[in-house]
Amino acid sequence: MGRGRPRVPLLGADLIVREALALIDAEGAGAFSLPRLASRLGVRTASLYNHLDGRAEVIEGVRRLIVEEMDVSAFDTLPWPDALAAWARSYRDAFARHPHSIDLLATTTISSPATLGMYEAVVAALARGGWPQERLIGALTSVESFLLGSALDLVAPPLMIDPAGHAPRVPVLAAALESTAGGSKAGRAEEAFAAGLDALIRGLVVQLAELREG
Amino acid sequence: MGRGRPRVPLLGADLIVREALALIDAEGAGAFSLPRLASRLGVRTASLYNHLDGRAEVIEGVRRLIVEEMDVSAFDTLPWPDALAAWARSYRDAFARHPHSIDLLATTTISSPATLGMYEAVVAALARGGWPQERLIGALTSVESFLLGSALDLVAPPLMIDPAGHAPRVPVLAAALESTAGGSKAGRAEEAFAAGLDALIRGLVVQLAELREG
Repeated sequence: MGRGRPRVPLLGADLIVREALALIDAEGAGAFSLPRLASRLGVRTASLYNHLDGRAEVIEGVRRLIVEEMDVSAFDTLPWPDALAAWARSYRDAFARHPHSIDLLATTTISSPATLGMYEAVVAALARGGWPQERLIGALTSVESFLLGSALDLVAPPLMIDPAGHAPRVPVLAAALESTAGGSKAGRAEEAFAAGLDALIRGLVVQLAELREG
Repeated sequence: MGRGRPRVPLLGADLIVREALALIDAEGAGAFSLPRLASRLGVRTASLYNHLDGRAEVIEGVRRLIVEEMDVSAFDTLPWPDALAAWARSYRDAFARHPHSIDLLATTTISSPATLGMYEAVVAALARGGWPQERLIGALTSVESFLLGSALDLVAPPLMIDPAGHAPRVPVLAAALESTAGGSKAGRAEEAFAAGLDALIRGLVVQLAELREG
């Protein structure tokens, strides 16, 4: 940088979007608004519009940042069930780092090239694996629903279900919780995620086999 | 009611909790706070504490209201995979009516007798179906993650992925979206949910069969 340049980064679309993600991470999706974002950046709300078209473009930028943390490389080398599992893991981990963004992103339309490119990699691999075109979105949606829900679980409290004084009235539940109470909360969440993802992908393999027979 | 009683309902735990759910439904989980809730009820925040212990108890009451919309009756009559599917559908439908509550409830500890009772019905049926005690919470969590994610999908915009001008760069995705574009958005979400739930439960059946062999 030359002399006389400001030491703070110049306002631009990338900085705005990164600050939006920091705001959502710190205060939750409910706290996200353009005036609040502008205030964090020390600028007037109108200044944001010099760089971005508005709220929807900021949200789409936030999504891009999170998608960049996901890994589709396995689709180039592994059979679709294994590649789907590898991508799924990176997807859940990315959202687990930004749990407050889930509610916001799950309810806004996806349109950025980076995010579209990720979905293209997934559905193209499913198609190469034999999935019929009209079932691709359904298969993708199934997995994504599981991943979003799992990301929420990962940020749940250590003891999500606490029977406490009610244990005698819910004996099977209390015993089941007791038998999984060993180990860390992260370990239990990981175990549940791995087992659930395994079940879902096995089920998809069974469904595809039936589709191809039928 | 006798003469002289107020025509507005008297403040009580039930009324507070119902107003909390109405607030979350209308304005999102980020808007939920005890002062805001008190203001909607036309009382001082301190008055809420005459009826409830605080924020956590209000949230747990909101969960109870939503759980009361779910149906566990199938566990008494159907084999576990079918009963799980029936309960899952009622669970997703209940959260789809209160989508803003998902983020809040997924990250707070469950302790009310009504909610514990629902989980008891689910895990007791899985146990009767042959699931080992130490796998019950994992199986329950898998299904619940899928359900929470699906409820989010149900309230997503009609066109969740919009390739628009980028279609040539994402040809498989664009064609897949095109081939599922017929029919209503609700119909597509329902189809994806049904297929995903079917895959997950089939996968669980396969896992249980392996567990019992192993």
